Amino acid sequence: MAKKVYAGLVGYGTVGSGTAEILLKHKQDLFEKTGFEICLKTVADIKIDTTKLDDILSLCQNVTKNADDIINDPEIDIVIELVGGYTFAKELILKALKAKKHVVTANKALLAIHGAEIYKAADENGVSIGFEGAVGGGIPLIGVLKEDLVGNNISEVFGIINGTANYILSAMEAEGKEFSEVLKAAQEKGYAEADPTFDIEGIDTAHKITILASIGFKTLIPFDKVYTEGISDIKQVDIEFAKRLNCKIKLLAIARKRDEYIEVRVHPTMLPKSEMMAQVNGVFNAVEFIGDMVDKTMYYGRGAGGRPTGSAVVSDVVSIARDIAIGGVGRVPVLGFAGEYDYHYPIRDIKDVRSKFYLRFSVLDEPGTLAKIAGILGEHGISISQAIQPDERAPGEVVSMVFMTHKAVTRDIMTAIGEIDGLDCVKDKTVAIRVKEIV
Amino acid sequence: MAKKVYAGLVGYGTVGSGTAEILLKHKQDLFEKTGFEICLKTVADIKIDTTKLDDILSLCQNVTKNADDIINDPEIDIVIELVGGYTFAKELILKALKAKKHVVTANKALLAIHGAEIYKAADENGVSIGFEGAVGGGIPLIGVLKEDLVGNNISEVFGIINGTANYILSAMEAEGKEFSEVLKAAQEKGYAEADPTFDIEGIDTAHKITILASIGFKTLIPFDKVYTEGISDIKQVDIEFAKRLNCKIKLLAIARKRDEYIEVRVHPTMLPKSEMMAQVNGVFNAVEFIGDMVDKTMYYGRGAGGRPTGSAVVSDVVSIARDIAIGGVGRVPVLGFAGEYDYHYPIRDIKDVRSKFYLRFSVLDEPGTLAKIAGILGEHGISISQAIQPDERAPGEVVSMVFMTHKAVTRDIMTAIGEIDGLDCVKDKTVAIRVKEIV
Repeated sequence: MAKKVYAGLVGYGTVGSGTAEILLKHKQDLFEKTGFEICLKTVADIKIDTTKLDDILSLCQNVTKNADDIINDPEIDIVIELVGGYTFAKELILKALKAKKHVVTANKALLAIHGAEIYKAADENGVSIGFEGAVGGGIPLIGVLKEDLVGNNISEVFGIINGTANYILSAMEAEGKEFSEVLKAAQEKGYAEADPTFDIEGIDTAHKITILASIGFKTLIPFDKVYTEGISDIKQVDIEFAKRLNCKIKLLAIARKRDEYIEVRVHPTMLPKSEMMAQVNGVFNAVEFIGDMVDKTMYYGRGAGGRPTGSAVVSDVVSIARDIAIGGVGRVPVLGFAGEYDYHYPIRDIKDVRSKFYLRFSVLDEPGTLAKIAGILGEHGISISQAIQPDERAPGEVVSMVFMTHKAVTRDIMTAIGEIDGLDCVKDKTVAIRVKEIV
Repeated sequence: MAKKVYAGLVGYGTVGSGTAEILLKHKQDLFEKTGFEICLKTVADIKIDTTKLDDILSLCQNVTKNADDIINDPEIDIVIELVGGYTFAKELILKALKAKKHVVTANKALLAIHGAEIYKAADENGVSIGFEGAVGGGIPLIGVLKEDLVGNNISEVFGIINGTANYILSAMEAEGKEFSEVLKAAQEKGYAEADPTFDIEGIDTAHKITILASIGFKTLIPFDKVYTEGISDIKQVDIEFAKRLNCKIKLLAIARKRDEYIEVRVHPTMLPKSEMMAQVNGVFNAVEFIGDMVDKTMYYGRGAGGRPTGSAVVSDVVSIARDIAIGGVGRVPVLGFAGEYDYHYPIRDIKDVRSKFYLRFSVLDEPGTLAKIAGILGEHGISISQAIQPDERAPGEVVSMVFMTHKAVTRDIMTAIGEIDGLDCVKDKTVAIRVKEIV
């Protein structure tokens, strides 16, 4: 039995330093849990902060600007990639795999888009790639799908998997402020990046659901077919209507497997407050998996941050180290299923998806408006479950009128909205937010 | 690589049949996920229902009344024990381990009390014992603690881990009925057993927290030192006061590790409705683990039932089969830590534990009562955060008066209650329910 396993870490940012901290601080604890020593031998970072060299050197043996020093080190078995991005990180991972190093990464963007190539390279080289840290920060999700729920046919994966977007929506609700103001405050507090596009436009969420769905449903998911809608158009008035409807607006990732197709989508969603998922506030994340045997299960925790994500990265490192120690590499297939990485199911076009909708119309307060709009919805087979008219009359002014629909096909909703937005009495683009039924 | 792994199952009850169903129904799926075949070869049950023999034989190759047929079968690697109880199950497991069979069990009572002997026997014989199904039904908890959260020092494990008790408390709240009436209805619906003692008196919950805490805190926990208080004394009036206080009453298991001691206790607890845990209703379970790196994480799902618990049992079977397939048995230590099974920490006496308390006094509605009681509490250093007096005066009648305390030492609370219950104006035993602060 190997008594020492050496790792090298590339990318000493938030998650990189969190990971290094855990490996050092918990060295003895990890030894008690595994029976062997996990040594962080080398840290590589091209933009290494030389004033922090002493700090970093207290966590490992060597610091370098050149990641090749790790890949070329025959003593190192595990390469931890925490650089992010598509270009350098991809090259690095492929190079490491070819050098027969096991890889641990938290790079969801890379895996969502270039996963197939990377998973294949790992298999071809007889090494493992772990990416628990790529989704849901410290919440165990990948391991749970691959191992703990192995006895299930997973039909549904959904959740809140972007802390920045959830923080903004929670703050809009708590503080009554508009999106742009809350975003600015979040940026100042470090909860949102200078360029927040990936987080607020749902792209990061789409990366993550692509990975989760591919494991849950035993098929690759083509990232470019994931319908993605962000939260930047959410207005305070919608948050207020949601409250009146006893709902919260959350940016949800939803993936469903049916016999004939898979649905994968990311969009703002009205959730009844009675759902556990609606209680997930601030930077916290939560994911629900539904399996045919286990039924509904939910996982909740911090979806980002150096230590929580570092906790996930370390769990991958330990898992690979355990495999190395017993000489049993490749114990669990990369995506949890053996065989070709392929697209086994068609992805359903968002236009064909059926949902309940919240529709907010900006209309002139004049007689006959409700009837005109309801008429167009009816022509397209959309039935209304509830209508909220303004509390007070404001003749000649633009007011908000809200309809809640029964389940309708998205295509019909879009066509109807197109016609409604052409009416003279409609003064602004209609807002449509999907409503999650209780599963 | 082994291409076939054979299992034998002893005890064909609810969980046994759920497990067998999964192994058969998902045989192909499990093959795709693992690359090998898992065969349920033999089912043993001393009370086998001979009219169901054909059904059972559709799930396996042999049915027998004699568990030894499984233990003596050289082809069988994994023995699944789903008999329950302490006597036969213990003998069976020890016999199986000695015969170098891996064991999977969901027998929490047995492990809580005789765990040390069983874990040691597994180690001595170089085989594994899996017990994911012992706690939280289908919710991944044991695997999460042992593997996914391996990079953490766990400081707190708490949750709702008995579906029967939670169902009864939820129904009392929803239906406004008293405990005994709700219990009777639960028994008729099959949610409570004919003898419900283990569930309603917190004993089953104590078994489960003993197991979770031993893994989380890397030490055996002496079951007889777990403070255990059930829900049979909870009255509808307490549920109603909880509602007024924006709380719910839940039967919580709480385990905490501090530097010098461990606290392990089971008791009804008032939880602020804003806590996720308070949203766990009916037969559902939820557990929170707090780690120094990952912070707060929560796991939610069905805590019982043939298929959910079967899902957990199958995950253990698959995990052991994977180990067998790669020749790497003993990859993860039985309790998640290598070394002796011993009692490493003192367990704190419940009398020394500090909690906030809800105290309900049954008092004569007469002047000076509140002052007398408050005076006694004050003498014992217990300060009051809130007092609820009856809305209407009812001179000479017995009414409920509620005090919420700040944190106080349990011993002081008990002494004060003893004195208060001796007052002339106090007409019934004082009810004390602990209040969980938000962590």
